[in-house]
Amino acid sequence: MRDIYCLTLFLLFLVMSGMQVQKKEKVIFFGDSITNAGVKPGGYITLMQEKIKKDGGPDYELIGAGIGGNKVYDLYLRFQEDVLDKKPDVVVIYIGVNDVWHKQSNQTGTDPDKFVAFYTAMIKKLQASGIRVIVCTPAVIGERTDFSNSQDGDLNRYSQMIRDLAAKYGCGLVDLRKAFLEYNLANNPGNKESGILTTDRVHLNPTGNQLVADLMFKGLSTK
Amino acid sequence: MRDIYCLTLFLLFLVMSGMQVQKKEKVIFFGDSITNAGVKPGGYITLMQEKIKKDGGPDYELIGAGIGGNKVYDLYLRFQEDVLDKKPDVVVIYIGVNDVWHKQSNQTGTDPDKFVAFYTAMIKKLQASGIRVIVCTPAVIGERTDFSNSQDGDLNRYSQMIRDLAAKYGCGLVDLRKAFLEYNLANNPGNKESGILTTDRVHLNPTGNQLVADLMFKGLSTK
Amino acid sequence: MRDIYCLTLFLLFLVMSGMQVQKKEKVIFFGDSITNAGVKPGGYITLMQEKIKKDGGPDYELIGAGIGGNKVYDLYLRFQEDVLDKKPDVVVIYIGVNDVWHKQSNQTGTDPDKFVAFYTAMIKKLQASGIRVIVCTPAVIGERTDFSNSQDGDLNRYSQMIRDLAAKYGCGLVDLRKAFLEYNLANNPGNKESGILTTDRVHLNPTGNQLVADLMFKGLSTK
Amino acid sequence: MRDIYCLTLFLLFLVMSGMQVQKKEKVIFFGDSITNAGVKPGGYITLMQEKIKKDGGPDYELIGAGIGGNKVYDLYLRFQEDVLDKKPDVVVIYIGVNDVWHKQSNQTGTDPDKFVAFYTAMIKKLQASGIRVIVCTPAVIGERTDFSNSQDGDLNRYSQMIRDLAAKYGCGLVDLRKAFLEYNLANNPGNKESGILTTDRVHLNPTGNQLVADLMFKGLSTK
Repeated sequence: MRDIYCLTLFLLFLVMSGMQVQKKEKVIFFGDSITNAGVKPGGYITLMQEKIKKDGGPDYELIGAGIGGNKVYDLYLRFQEDVLDKKPDVVVIYIGVNDVWHKQSNQTGTDPDKFVAFYTAMIKKLQASGIRVIVCTPAVIGERTDFSNSQDGDLNRYSQMIRDLAAKYGCGLVDLRKAFLEYNLANNPGNKESGILTTDRVHLNPTGNQLVADLMFKGLSTK
Repeated sequence: MRDIYCLTLFLLFLVMSGMQVQKKEKVIFFGDSITNAGVKPGGYITLMQEKIKKDGGPDYELIGAGIGGNKVYDLYLRFQEDVLDKKPDVVVIYIGVNDVWHKQSNQTGTDPDKFVAFYTAMIKKLQASGIRVIVCTPAVIGERTDFSNSQDGDLNRYSQMIRDLAAKYGCGLVDLRKAFLEYNLANNPGNKESGILTTDRVHLNPTGNQLVADLMFKGLSTK
Repeated sequence: MRDIYCLTLFLLFLVMSGMQVQKKEKVIFFGDSITNAGVKPGGYITLMQEKIKKDGGPDYELIGAGIGGNKVYDLYLRFQEDVLDKKPDVVVIYIGVNDVWHKQSNQTGTDPDKFVAFYTAMIKKLQASGIRVIVCTPAVIGERTDFSNSQDGDLNRYSQMIRDLAAKYGCGLVDLRKAFLEYNLANNPGNKESGILTTDRVHLNPTGNQLVADLMFKGLSTK
Repeated sequence: MRDIYCLTLFLLFLVMSGMQVQKKEKVIFFGDSITNAGVKPGGYITLMQEKIKKDGGPDYELIGAGIGGNKVYDLYLRFQEDVLDKKPDVVVIYIGVNDVWHKQSNQTGTDPDKFVAFYTAMIKKLQASGIRVIVCTPAVIGERTDFSNSQDGDLNRYSQMIRDLAAKYGCGLVDLRKAFLEYNLANNPGNKESGILTTDRVHLNPTGNQLVADLMFKGLSTK
């Protein structure tokens, strides 16, 4: 009788282990129009999915939750529904371009202190639910490499705020701004505004999507 | 035996009725620097409290929850802690000046559609908790009466959005913008920018605090 | 001999009078994209020219000198070349929309005091050369009639500054802003942003061009 | 007789040479509030004058023509009166901070193409009058060294436009922006916003005035 009991337990263990191995890690990419485009053909999330399928790499379920025009507080407004209710294992927050950009285009950007306040609130709620958090710096609004894009000052500042948050709360960091600058320093000798990694100074062209996909993959793998 | 039972019940009913009469209605004023100043000596909330004490009118517990520089989404970020957790009977939302003003002063105002989205989210949560909601239009950024204050266009627009929300969700409405304009049309023949109801085009002078106190009282009494 | 002399003088007088009657009054319309479009088919200047040709009315030579995106200081930069050197009899200054509009679209509007300074400099130079000056108020950025177009405050203010300049320096005034508002109050019951007198909140549709043509004509005839 | 004639001529030559040596070179510093402060005690122009007096160096007559809040087009408006009519030998144009800064503070900055247009018009007029032109880049709006001051992008861009103008028209160049950055990289390890060369991110403290004085001297001496 005791043997059967042990055997049952052992089998149960095997089954559960198997289930655990099978279980995909659910990753939500939470962001703006760049992430919204990320799930379309050629988008950075689509590229990641195709790579997983081809290489049979780590088993992620990648979910895009990007909405055009979103700023950090827009994420917060739909945070419960679009993130917490979906019970993800990992959340990649990729926000900040519009918080800076809309200062010029609409006079409706986000103050630095409020950017940090909303961002912090989301990190804390995610970590309180045991969800791994990865944060990204906003890549570019203009690809000129001599810091003469008109909003480079703010992008540098908000990026540093995000790096500081990552350090403070122990989040993963995908430093897109740094990577985009390095790529442009190597590949944009003409100091062009767009066309290297973006189509229009902000949104990703195929090269940009591939670069982001690679960096996101690295970010997900780094624990 | 049965009579005693009836008598006890009757007494209990009296006591409970009495308690209910005694119970103060808790009112939270949820807003920005104008509301923050409202609880100080001479502020509109202080004036209301003094009037209640003197006249022995309706028994309200008036709570100021104003923070300088707040916009609609800042209210939303501290909504649970500063409002819902306090279990008020009534919430007076008085926001919008900074959502417009900061467009010019900091390029960090609030887009109209997002203003409505955050405002709606708060109204719905309050009403779902059975809390009465009173909304206020933002009074002035400049007191000139010929609509030549540089942000009159937006103030008129955002005020109309708030009036529409009040109508749509059956909220009380304290139309400060309308009242301030009427007061200025009657009392600002020189078309001055400030000094009639405000000290600095935005913040209330004693006359302004008294006007807001009177209008808020009327708003609270109108059910 | 003396008779012949007198006769000659008399004939000469007749000829010169005739020449004077024949001489066209040269009118330069000095402005922005609205005036640039004014010389195209259906534009307000073209409509005026067609009316003159048809009615045989007062003999004006109408010259369009509008450049897209121009603000008051852009007019000043090209003032000598595009106006003074052409020796006009009348100059119609129609500027101000971009001075206000670009505040929001590019953060490059014009401060009120500087608007007045450049405007005054041009009026003085024109009057010093004996040129008649007619000034126009900027019509609309958005056609809503309840002053809820976001830049109505500034448009009302800058228009008043122009009316004050006209009064101070004895210039003719074509009050387009007033006329457009009156037309919209009568013809825009739905409080639409555009489509009544403009195609896009700013630039004139056929009805708008006709209204401006009529008002300009009246302005030219009023001495 | 002929000897006397020769002697007279020779003496005349000596006198004229002497007069020429005596003649001071008139230098006008044409700019904004920074230049306006430059003529006050401790200001950069005052420091230059004191140095000349002490060292007995090159004999310049230094004239400050700075007005607070001026942008490039404000210089142009008062160009004839404040510069050309004074018949200077050298004009130092030091403008651009407000053209960038006022984008954020007042939404009334200057578009890049118009900045170049007004700047070019002044250079051409000066050179047509045989006046030597020295141009300066705008130093800083914020002294952080990692290009995270919010308007660094525009300052870098407008500075480059000025460098390009100097090259194109053969003007002297005092590259304050470059010099300020280098100084801060060496002396601002804490990445502070102000207090190194400025009092308030823009206006010069004593160290800043001394640095500008030294650079201006070098610029004047380099022909």
